[in-house]
Amino acid sequence: MNSGKTMQSKNKVFLPLFIIVSLFLTGCGGSSNNGTVAEASSAPAKVYKWRMVTTWPKNLPGLGRAPEMLAEKVRLMSNGRLQITVFGAGEIVPALGVFDAVSLGNVEMGHGAAYYWKGKVPVAQFFTAVPFGLTAQEMNGWLHHGGGIELWEELYGKYNLVPLACGNSGTQMAGWFNKEINSLADLKGMKMRIPGLGGEVFERAGGTAVNLPGGEIFTSLQTGVIDATEWVGPYNDLTFGLHQIAQYYYYPGWQEPGPTLEAIVNKEAFATLPADLQEIVRVAAKAVNDDLLAEYTARNNNALRELVDQHGVELRRLPVDVLNELHKISEEVIAEIPGDDELSQKIYRSYIEYRDGVVAYQDIAERAYVNARAEALEN
Amino acid sequence: MNSGKTMQSKNKVFLPLFIIVSLFLTGCGGSSNNGTVAEASSAPAKVYKWRMVTTWPKNLPGLGRAPEMLAEKVRLMSNGRLQITVFGAGEIVPALGVFDAVSLGNVEMGHGAAYYWKGKVPVAQFFTAVPFGLTAQEMNGWLHHGGGIELWEELYGKYNLVPLACGNSGTQMAGWFNKEINSLADLKGMKMRIPGLGGEVFERAGGTAVNLPGGEIFTSLQTGVIDATEWVGPYNDLTFGLHQIAQYYYYPGWQEPGPTLEAIVNKEAFATLPADLQEIVRVAAKAVNDDLLAEYTARNNNALRELVDQHGVELRRLPVDVLNELHKISEEVIAEIPGDDELSQKIYRSYIEYRDGVVAYQDIAERAYVNARAEALEN
Repeated sequence: MNSGKTMQSKNKVFLPLFIIVSLFLTGCGGSSNNGTVAEASSAPAKVYKWRMVTTWPKNLPGLGRAPEMLAEKVRLMSNGRLQITVFGAGEIVPALGVFDAVSLGNVEMGHGAAYYWKGKVPVAQFFTAVPFGLTAQEMNGWLHHGGGIELWEELYGKYNLVPLACGNSGTQMAGWFNKEINSLADLKGMKMRIPGLGGEVFERAGGTAVNLPGGEIFTSLQTGVIDATEWVGPYNDLTFGLHQIAQYYYYPGWQEPGPTLEAIVNKEAFATLPADLQEIVRVAAKAVNDDLLAEYTARNNNALRELVDQHGVELRRLPVDVLNELHKISEEVIAEIPGDDELSQKIYRSYIEYRDGVVAYQDIAERAYVNARAEALEN
Repeated sequence: MNSGKTMQSKNKVFLPLFIIVSLFLTGCGGSSNNGTVAEASSAPAKVYKWRMVTTWPKNLPGLGRAPEMLAEKVRLMSNGRLQITVFGAGEIVPALGVFDAVSLGNVEMGHGAAYYWKGKVPVAQFFTAVPFGLTAQEMNGWLHHGGGIELWEELYGKYNLVPLACGNSGTQMAGWFNKEINSLADLKGMKMRIPGLGGEVFERAGGTAVNLPGGEIFTSLQTGVIDATEWVGPYNDLTFGLHQIAQYYYYPGWQEPGPTLEAIVNKEAFATLPADLQEIVRVAAKAVNDDLLAEYTARNNNALRELVDQHGVELRRLPVDVLNELHKISEEVIAEIPGDDELSQKIYRSYIEYRDGVVAYQDIAERAYVNARAEALEN
């Protein structure tokens, strides 16, 4: 019998393996110290290498940093067990190919904004921005405590996707113009870069809405391909140098009062993750959602000072009449979105009902407060 | 020599240990499947059992749920490697003993609000709420992208604590009153439950500020121990039944425009955590910060309808003159907080400088938008 010898030879393998494993598992196996007890099952050490395609130019400040922040938080929290490589628009698929790439499972994740898919899923626009709709804070309330995310999951589930709210720029600006807007008639015949539902409203007001990726905006406005543009807000607009080629910077951003960015995960890919990694992805998305809005709030503030004080940008408020007329058109446009589709109607009703309530609440909360503060500070 | 025998006997121990370890580490050691590659180091399996004491009654909706949410997210993300048990006020230490208990290392974590420590660290109040100060969204901008958290870490570092922003109720209400407030003189001689800097302003306006824990508010107001009270907002106030014993519900909450809740971690305890668990704690706190504000925004909205429609609560706006006078007093009170302390002066200057900028920015952003929307919806 050579079982003894076999045993010994196996042990030669086990021993170094155990030492290696021990290095990874310090304290495992029932030992306790420093008031801690080792009794839980350890997370499996399988490593997942994922790809995340995005609608943003690689490393665009703000918007483009959100997916990088998400990937970084996930990597650190999972101790490298879930590694997500981020690709800018066009690196693997073009910006507007993100939805399909993740839906088909060609890549595991995507980052962008739901209104980019309006050609395929018109009602998806409610999960980014609605003209005269919800601010960032209100949007988070609807999504996570007002039934919004459940509807979004139902909608995207049909496309094999799990949606996550993952970033918000806060209220945007109405845009950059080279002529004064004194009445709605001034928009007639104007060619403006303005995406999503805002673009549809702009068209119905007599303008021509053009959808251009960020990288083409400056040249298009400079060469007269478009007459006006909106982009994001002071922080991002300053980077693009739009103040060099447009005279008036109009507010408020009626068309995008608090656009939510989305992270989308292929459903099967998400299901293959163990529970802890699924939770890590979900929680990281919420943290990025919190962090990006904070970044925009702080950076917009500084960029606005630079635009006004150093570059002499002229800020203008859209006239009340223009805003009121745009609002009337907006309500018509968004009411038509659901058509005959039952789920789309449900999403529309949920959004509008929540908005009615939250607007009433804002009358005594944030809105009442910021107005009182402004009045007191001026006093 | 008996080294061979010793070796063999050691191997008898190593073998079962290795099998146990393997059960925990399925897939470890270079195997790959489903497009994933196992090559990363596995997280150590040591389990940390922590205690978190809080300033909140156990399971209080909203505020009291924040630490529970934090503990739950951490448990799931760490796969049980960091287990935090949450204790309500008085279960281990009284509400106002939380800071010291964590500072001394008697427990690893705490959850509450920095203004509760004003007796020990007056400037800490800037990290919760400042009268006529920052809203929730603005506060997050200051903390995470305006230098606030670095100053908070420097301040709390002296007390052996790591601070994390972990929840926000949004703009609160001014409070419940049984007499009309028509001028500042109406506050004279009034006994009101109002904590923090708001309480100091109220005192300077001629009132008496009383600090009562949540559980004592209803009876104190009912029996006339206090004449008026503020608590949080519709969602929490409805739960307490304050509408049953007070006639007027005043807004806006000038005293707490967007109070930040804090999670505090004992510095040495935090340092004992491996890097992935540290990141899990930090990211979970940010996610809770996002989630709690969303919850309040959605729930306040519904609770307000119930208070007004079902309970006939009378909403009143504080007169402009009263707000402006309270603002003047507030600026005096907060300017006195730093005294001769250099770090406190730095915190005060950072806060005020950021506020000036963000208020100017709000004039063209969220504030401009919510006013335009309200006007359009009424039109």
